[in-house]
Amino acid sequence: MKTRAALAVKAGEKLEVTDVNLEGPKAGEVLVEIKATGICHTDEFTLSGADPEGIFPAILGHEGAGVVAEVGPGVTSLKPGDHVIPLYTPECRECDYCLNPKTNLCQAIRSTQGQGLMPDGTSRFTTLDGDPIFHYMGTSTFSNFTVLPEIALAKVRPDAPFDKICYIGCGVTTGIGAVMNTAKVEIGSRCVVFGLGGIGLNVIQGLRLAGADQIVGVDLNPDKKAMGERFGMTDFVNPAEVEGDLVPYLVDLTKGGADYSFDATGNVDVMRAALECAHKGWGESIIIGVAPAGAEISTRPFQLVTGRVWRGTAFGGARGRTDVPKIVDWYMEGKIEIDPMITHTMGLDQINDGFDLMHKGESIRSVVLY
Amino acid sequence: MKTRAALAVKAGEKLEVTDVNLEGPKAGEVLVEIKATGICHTDEFTLSGADPEGIFPAILGHEGAGVVAEVGPGVTSLKPGDHVIPLYTPECRECDYCLNPKTNLCQAIRSTQGQGLMPDGTSRFTTLDGDPIFHYMGTSTFSNFTVLPEIALAKVRPDAPFDKICYIGCGVTTGIGAVMNTAKVEIGSRCVVFGLGGIGLNVIQGLRLAGADQIVGVDLNPDKKAMGERFGMTDFVNPAEVEGDLVPYLVDLTKGGADYSFDATGNVDVMRAALECAHKGWGESIIIGVAPAGAEISTRPFQLVTGRVWRGTAFGGARGRTDVPKIVDWYMEGKIEIDPMITHTMGLDQINDGFDLMHKGESIRSVVLY
Repeated sequence: MKTRAALAVKAGEKLEVTDVNLEGPKAGEVLVEIKATGICHTDEFTLSGADPEGIFPAILGHEGAGVVAEVGPGVTSLKPGDHVIPLYTPECRECDYCLNPKTNLCQAIRSTQGQGLMPDGTSRFTTLDGDPIFHYMGTSTFSNFTVLPEIALAKVRPDAPFDKICYIGCGVTTGIGAVMNTAKVEIGSRCVVFGLGGIGLNVIQGLRLAGADQIVGVDLNPDKKAMGERFGMTDFVNPAEVEGDLVPYLVDLTKGGADYSFDATGNVDVMRAALECAHKGWGESIIIGVAPAGAEISTRPFQLVTGRVWRGTAFGGARGRTDVPKIVDWYMEGKIEIDPMITHTMGLDQINDGFDLMHKGESIRSVVLY
Repeated sequence: MKTRAALAVKAGEKLEVTDVNLEGPKAGEVLVEIKATGICHTDEFTLSGADPEGIFPAILGHEGAGVVAEVGPGVTSLKPGDHVIPLYTPECRECDYCLNPKTNLCQAIRSTQGQGLMPDGTSRFTTLDGDPIFHYMGTSTFSNFTVLPEIALAKVRPDAPFDKICYIGCGVTTGIGAVMNTAKVEIGSRCVVFGLGGIGLNVIQGLRLAGADQIVGVDLNPDKKAMGERFGMTDFVNPAEVEGDLVPYLVDLTKGGADYSFDATGNVDVMRAALECAHKGWGESIIIGVAPAGAEISTRPFQLVTGRVWRGTAFGGARGRTDVPKIVDWYMEGKIEIDPMITHTMGLDQINDGFDLMHKGESIRSVVLY
């Protein structure tokens, strides 16, 4: 079949909205009609050329929601008409990782996914000239129709709006999951969140949900204050306005240091500050942001010897097929908010405008509606 | 009173064995007759001048065992004749740290201890000329008699031999505690221990106690192999004999990476290797060693984002008054071994020989007997 897609032809260039060929689902695969997709910094990271593993031409996009159109042989958990959210971290429930309660990093299809291919080692996408196009993160939601492995789809309730729940495919789950699954924040905790973008705001609403006593948001952009407060932030700190060093200021503000701190910036210097503002003896710092290729984190080992813990999280430690439907329920029940974070919507033809809004820092999330 | 002590006159010089004046215990303090003391790398670290917080003249030593000679006003938990092990990490059971189950870093007397003083801000030691001498780590076990706060003494059973259990005052508890309290190693784990000295060997026997399936010891000195195996090591790796990079070699040897790795070297490059040989998804690395002043650990944040956890431990996460008596019991019951690690004993007059043996790498532990 033919489908409309935004093609990433090469690094550093604008996406090209065009028709492409899409082969139907093979064994264990599912054809999904994408109804909405968010534009995330990770798409930008790859498109810019900064991602050393980026391959082109590819169809980007990993934050979608849609409807099952057709299932391949052997697919048992989904049928046409089911509403689904694509998962860039799948959940096979059979590999050593899925069977270990300490991780969500299912490895079942990791090597082919990393090569931009379906699990059988081939692509379903080609140009109208027949040249191969790579998949991206196993999801390629910047295509109206896309093919995914069954294990990379979370089935969700049919009454949830696609234009909002697509955000649960990455940002919402990453932020809330970092609080819930990775940090396991306790009621009454004091916490600091660095970076109040699309991830950081979800960390903040995760902390509100977890019953944190103090939720400090740190961002250089003063315009972020109102939105942070909207989601539960109790204190806003603009590092540009702090006299002296930021770390002791934050330690003082949190009465000894953060029980949990979160980096949602991808800046390795900020990651260090996040660790060092954690409380002596027990403070844990969680890295969420993706750093530039080759960048390294550093600190004195004394910081760890005196009880701080350094962790990271991918997809918020969530097991997608299990956790994503729950988070959709929480949205529908009003337990979490998404609507105010979807600041812009557009058609696929305007997708490059969404990237421009991100560059300018004007959007929290832009969503493409098919 | 007068007592015999090894005085650290200044950084980089040999200890001077001499008589010093010792004032009796004030309120909340206890006079202890030290019967035996180990010589630990931390004493050497300070004596060498590498410790930026080192102050002189001081009486070093922090790995002792002895008998209560006299108690000051208000002391209720100890009486003359009780057998005790001095604790450089005290346990007041009242401060915010003692009341938080996540840490052992009691802060009750931290600031004065760091200044080489008793909790009232003064020293009990002076030279025969009346000049002040500083305490060290709140313990100063290189003196035949020493004064300590009540909260810095663990009461132990009277039938345990001083010349062995003194080692529980630091090395044994640090190594076993890192396994038990900090890593919380599960039965069946695969583990890697870097550095098979006085701490590393105790990590190894801690891992044996915890039921680890694989215990890999890493050391550049091939002479360490036999001793490692004596305490439960299953695989010995000499990095000098590994072709190619050490980290992938260890990942392969542990079938995907260590569930837990431990640095007992104090070398920041080794700390990085220890982290990076931990298993993707769930491996935890624990820093035990003390790094040189100013040295920093580094890694790519991707190592943490893909599920590795970086921790540190001080005194093995042990709460001394509670945990040290238990470890003494384990020794007396044959659950752990200490005797083969005490490779040399000597009188106080020969204490500098103990430092020489350490420099040459000929001893695991030298113990001074009073």
